Order: sequence, then structure tokens, then C-alpha cells
Amino acid sequence: MKAAVLREVGKPLQIEDVAIGKPAAHEVLIRTAAAGVCHSDLHFVEGSYPYPLPAVLGHESAGVVEAVGSEVRTVKPGDHVITCLSAFCGHCKHCVTGHMNRCESGEVRRGESEEPRLTQAAAPLNQFLNLSSFAEQMLIHEHACVAIRPDMPLDRAALIGCSVMTGVGAVFHTSNVRPGDTVAVIGCGGVGLAAINGAQIAGASRIIAIDMAKGKENLAKHFGATDFVCASETDPVAAVIEMTKGGVEHSFEAVGLKATSEQAFLMLARGGTANIIGMVPVTQKIELPAYMFLGEKRIQGSLMGSNHFPVDMPRLVDFYLAGKLRLDDMISRRIRLEQVNEAFAEMKTGGVARSVIMFDA
Amino acid sequence: MKAAVLREVGKPLQIEDVAIGKPAAHEVLIRTAAAGVCHSDLHFVEGSYPYPLPAVLGHESAGVVEAVGSEVRTVKPGDHVITCLSAFCGHCKHCVTGHMNRCESGEVRRGESEEPRLTQAAAPLNQFLNLSSFAEQMLIHEHACVAIRPDMPLDRAALIGCSVMTGVGAVFHTSNVRPGDTVAVIGCGGVGLAAINGAQIAGASRIIAIDMAKGKENLAKHFGATDFVCASETDPVAAVIEMTKGGVEHSFEAVGLKATSEQAFLMLARGGTANIIGMVPVTQKIELPAYMFLGEKRIQGSLMGSNHFPVDMPRLVDFYLAGKLRLDDMISRRIRLEQVNEAFAEMKTGGVARSVIMFDA
Repeated sequence: MKAAVLREVGKPLQIEDVAIGKPAAHEVLIRTAAAGVCHSDLHFVEGSYPYPLPAVLGHESAGVVEAVGSEVRTVKPGDHVITCLSAFCGHCKHCVTGHMNRCESGEVRRGESEEPRLTQAAAPLNQFLNLSSFAEQMLIHEHACVAIRPDMPLDRAALIGCSVMTGVGAVFHTSNVRPGDTVAVIGCGGVGLAAINGAQIAGASRIIAIDMAKGKENLAKHFGATDFVCASETDPVAAVIEMTKGGVEHSFEAVGLKATSEQAFLMLARGGTANIIGMVPVTQKIELPAYMFLGEKRIQGSLMGSNHFPVDMPRLVDFYLAGKLRLDDMISRRIRLEQVNEAFAEMKTGGVARSVIMFDA
Repeated sequence: MKAAVLREVGKPLQIEDVAIGKPAAHEVLIRTAAAGVCHSDLHFVEGSYPYPLPAVLGHESAGVVEAVGSEVRTVKPGDHVITCLSAFCGHCKHCVTGHMNRCESGEVRRGESEEPRLTQAAAPLNQFLNLSSFAEQMLIHEHACVAIRPDMPLDRAALIGCSVMTGVGAVFHTSNVRPGDTVAVIGCGGVGLAAINGAQIAGASRIIAIDMAKGKENLAKHFGATDFVCASETDPVAAVIEMTKGGVEHSFEAVGLKATSEQAFLMLARGGTANIIGMVPVTQKIELPAYMFLGEKRIQGSLMGSNHFPVDMPRLVDFYLAGKLRLDDMISRRIRLEQVNEAFAEMKTGGVARSVIMFDA
């Protein structure tokens, strides 16, 4: 099969022929239908987060089950599925206490058999985040995908697999936004727009979108923002505090920078919660004025939207089909696998909401 | 009446004659029985936090009601009361949503009448944190005290008024420690020991006490610690991570330093919560490695133990009288008002758990 391989940090992905294994007992072979190109992929391409190479990238996808291992019970051939990097074992401390997204169990992630899942002339290739979606097929654990209703378009379903779950889940689960709460979202890329949309679904009274690009205002408002602050023209902390007479109850950092993480904390009301969704480069530290904690403020990380994806993702599909979750407008461009490096280049300009790679059905 | 006045940052308190007003409609006049000398008082003496001067310090006390204003309904003359600096209005956003400790309503704090509560030859003196407990009498809002059962000794009751509520409340309310959870407490002064004791009452499975002074080990274990780490001999972060195979679910910073605040975050397990209880000097910033937030870690402030003191303090009195809350061993010395500066000097040596000023009945 064809796959996009990262061989060296900073270099373009290469489209190569890659061999894929057969499902072990709990594994599932999936024909990839669509894969979103996510900013997190770019972090690894650029080396701001490390990963063992060579690897097949991609981690936001949907497809159709082709074959399953002997013990698989949750999906069957022909099922439409969304994949999720939050592969979970189902029996560790995190899994049994409602935090399956925090599962660190190696058994699910490395594969059950001795055979590598991906190879090239018998040499193993690293699978990226349990998935490797930039490929025509995926071999994954059954706990890394969930079946969805067949009337859901798979290109839009793919987005639910990472960016949408991450943004909406941070609002629903990590920060527990309640009807009437006030919200600020820093960054109007895929994850930020999903957080804005999630805040609207959750009934937030005020949803302040913040971005450096003035041109994002209409897009943000289309997704549910009630207000927009252009951070290249106005200090967003001062603006949010003035607009809300003292700060917001929830803020979401969906950029992945030190400065915006600090802003998320500084724009909180007493008792407010800042949520770090973005991936801040691994070497950086977030600096917070100590005295501000006296206002019972909180800053916390959100890992994949604190998801319980087998429950959450089918619900998000329903939200889309009911017209509440705006996935159509999140896809700015549909491309071929061979164009993946173009998508990364466009991402750096900040203009694109999301490119989705379409595979042959 | 006699009161201890701070006239200038860095100078000793002076024992002076001070006049006190009469209760306005919702105010209560209290005969002070006992007042703890708290490290927070020292912060203001040393100027690491600002306060308008001259002021009568002290904010951890118990006493007997002498007179009440015409509208007071919650206490009556003769009642034994514990005071609390968390004076609350009872009708703002914070008060009506279960967070009365965050109330910022000026109406309760500045007094209802045009007359200042404390004066000296007609010149107003500032009341400290709505209380000014280093004085033979206090004139406060009825929402700054709660009646307790008369069989409770007032010197031990005084401790509940600040340090014990702060430490126990951070465990019960701010971090919501559950039976079987793992806990680390940095600093074994009054607040830290109260947090340790609170964790024991809450059923924590592992309570790791940390202090620079090796001599605190027996004291910490007496209050409920299961383990002790001497931070002057061992890196407490590495020690806690090793002892718990990956970090604790809850950590509490009860020192008030940048370094220990950072340690509290670094010693967390995935999904863990660090609580800043101590007052870190107002100019300092806490620096946190950004990537660690990906483990859904959280750091938050605790203001007076997220108390609902009218409910909490009578319960803490019951815990003491049932032998669960160890207040007797928290008082290391009983002194006269005139010795208050000695108490501050001893506090700086780190040897004393708590000095309590006793007033004539």
C-alpha cells in the first residue's frame, strides 16, 4: 500500500510502498477513507516533539473495516469507523475510573504480536500514535476505533477523530462548561473552532474567539463565537477582562505557545479554569504570577479532550447530522496523499482551517 | 482596649490603646479569647504582600459575643464564636453558587456605617482582613463569624479560624481528596499539618509529608503522615515519584515559595492536582514545563480552603472533640499580646508549630 513516511525531522514526507500485517487477536485492519492533516503532525515533522523514525504519520481518520482478529467484538468487517489515538486497555487505573484517555498501557499500543504492524522489505516502520493514518490501510487495536452510523460522510467523520474531539471534549469534559458560562478560545484553527462550536452546544452565554488574523472573525462567528478579538491589534487579556467585567470562567489555549498559554490564565475570573489544549514546544515553560492563584484560579492540561471516544464520537456524529456541529466548513481543502507536504506548507501560513486527504474508496 | 498595631513595614508591632465602635445593624462585637499568630501576618509585617497602614493585625481567633446589631440573626450575646476572614455577602455570584470564600463584596468588608470600626484619637485605624484579632475586642460583620458549641476550648477553636480551615479545606474542598487517594504535603507548619490531618480524615491511602527540617518527621507522622521526606537531604520530587511509582494524585504547597510550588506540580501523577495554599511573594512567577500539562495535570489555588465556614467550622469542632482533629499538638506556645513580636521571631526559625495569644476572659 501507499503511505507517507517521515524519515528525517524537517524533511518532506515521502510517498512510499509499505507492507501492512494481518490482524492479531484484538486487531482491526481498516481501509482508510479520509485523513485530516493536523498541526500535531507538523510538530513531529518539525521536531518540536520527538518521535522514533522512520514513521508513517497521520492520526485523524475514518475508514471501513476490512478484517478483524479472532477476539474482536466491537467492530466487524464493513463497519464504518472513526479512529482515535487514545487506544485504551480497558482495565488499568485510568480506564476503570472514567479517564480512558489517560491510559498508558503498552499492550494496546505496541501491538499484540511479535510482528511489526508496518514494514518495508522486512524492516520495521514505526506506527505513529497507534494509528498511522497517512496510508491506504491501518492495522490498529480494536480499542483505537469506534463504529459509527453508515450515513455519516467519512471525510467529515475523520475530523471527529482528533481535532473536533480535542476541542469539543476540552469544553464538555476537561473544563465542564455549563449553560450560561463565559468562555474565551485562543486560536481559531481546527481545534479552536471545535472548542467554539462545543461551547455553543454546551450553552455558553459568551464565547470570545481570539486570533492573530483579523480575517478569522467571520469564520469564528459562524462556528458560534459571540465576540472576536484580533490579537495583533488589541491586547487580548485586557480586552477579555473588559468585555466580561473581570475575566472569563473558562479559557482554552488552542495554539500551542507559551505566550498564549499565559494569556489563557491571565484572562480568568476568580475561580476560573484555563485549559491547555495546544502542544507547546517541549522545552518551554509557562510562567504564571503566583499571587493570582489566590483567586482560586486553575490551569490544567487537556489530553485529546478528556475523551471517552467510544461514547463521545457517535454522539458527535449525531450532533453533526442534527446540524449542531459544523464540520462542513471546517474542511477547507480535499487533497490526495501525494499533496500532504503542500498541506503542511499551507498550515504554516495560518490561512487554512483544515486539509483532508481523500483515499480511493 | 489594647491592640497590636503595625505602623510601618518591617517594624515590630506596637501594643497601643485603640477605640472600637458600636455594632451597626449586621455587626457583632466580640470579646477576643484567643488569637493564633499566623505566617500570613508575617507576610504583611515583612511587606511581601501590601496592606494599608497603620493596621491592627491578626486574623485567626475565637471569642465570646458581647453585643450585636439590630439585624443580626446568626449569633447572640454569650455565644462562643470562631471568626473567619472570608466575610461573605450571601447574595453575589460566588455566594449563591457554593463559593462564598470567593466573595469580594465590599459591603461586608468595609463596615456598614460611615464610622470606622477602629480609631485612635478619632483617627481611623485599618481593620486587617475584616477582623483585626490582635486586640481585646473585635467589631465584625455577622458573616465573619460562626457560633460553636460551648464545650469547645477557645484557644484550639481559634486555630480552626484560619490555618486549620485552610489546610483541611484544601484537602476536602479544593482538591476533593477521596478515600484511597495518594497525597503529598510540602511544608509541616500549621497549615501543612492541618492538610496532613485532613488527608487522614478523608481516608487518603498514602500521605507523604515533606519539610526541610528533619526534626518535623515525628510531628508529621503524629498528624497522620505515612511517610516523611527531608527536603534538605533528598530531592522531594524524585523521592515522591519513586515512592508512588509515578507521582501523587494530590499535592499541597503549604510553604509559600516559588520552588516548592513548582515541586508540587512536578511530583504529580497523570491526572493529578497541585494545590497552592501558601502565599508566594507577590512579585514571583511559577514556572511549569508546558509539556507536562499533556498528562492532564492541574495546578490551582486554594483560598482559605475553599471554605463554607458556617458549615465547615462547627464540623471541625466535632472532629476535634471526637479525637480526629489534633489541635492540642498544634499549639506549641501560649503567649500574651505583648509577646507577639517574639512569636514572629520564633516563626522565622521554623521550629514552632503555632503560638496562640491568650486574652483575659
